[in-house]
Amino acid sequence: MTERKSGNLFAKLTPPASEERFEALLETDGVTLEHIVSTGQATPPGDWYDQPRAEWVVLLKGAAGLRFEDETEVRELRPGDYVLIPAHARHRVEWTSETEPTVWLALHVAESRGA
Amino acid sequence: MTERKSGNLFAKLTPPASEERFEALLETDGVTLEHIVSTGQATPPGDWYDQPRAEWVVLLKGAAGLRFEDETEVRELRPGDYVLIPAHARHRVEWTSETEPTVWLALHVAESRGA
Repeated sequence: MTERKSGNLFAKLTPPASEERFEALLETDGVTLEHIVSTGQATPPGDWYDQPRAEWVVLLKGAAGLRFEDETEVRELRPGDYVLIPAHARHRVEWTSETEPTVWLALHVAESRGA
Repeated sequence: MTERKSGNLFAKLTPPASEERFEALLETDGVTLEHIVSTGQATPPGDWYDQPRAEWVVLLKGAAGLRFEDETEVRELRPGDYVLIPAHARHRVEWTSETEPTVWLALHVAESRGA
């Protein structure tokens, strides 16, 4: 980690893609920082994410609906909104904007003390 | 880390503050995720940050000038721009916008394999 890797999270957002784009920005022991660009995708019907690590996720552009299995309401996320998704908290992305790219930053971490 | 802590990175940006605001969003073993709001502050003249951990930092709103001690040019950061600052890479913030709040997200990590 001696390289001063730099870039822009909002660059190259076009053209709309048929698949979500994932890019690992940083990967260390137990920690992954991921840049995600969605263009209308959602978690397939009936599927739930059940992750072994906690995920801190922020939506930076666009909009999305996030649902936890044990919640009835879909959380609507707008730019700047972040949520900490505990390990094994089953959740899914109900929708992402179809009119503009949705940019996420997701930090996956193995364990926590505090916060 | 069972709580679904949520919030918005762009909320409560006013009024302009005389000091930078720092908030730890997440703290785990060796990892700290920090939300920073600057309102015109800069690193004091002659001071350099020399950090034991690498820092991945992204500017989300506003603008700032970041300088590494061994570089002659100041890197101008605009929304979405990120830089990985390796451990012990001496650097300073030359300036932050005086006309709008500058919002940063900084991830401090202890070590790395890959990336």
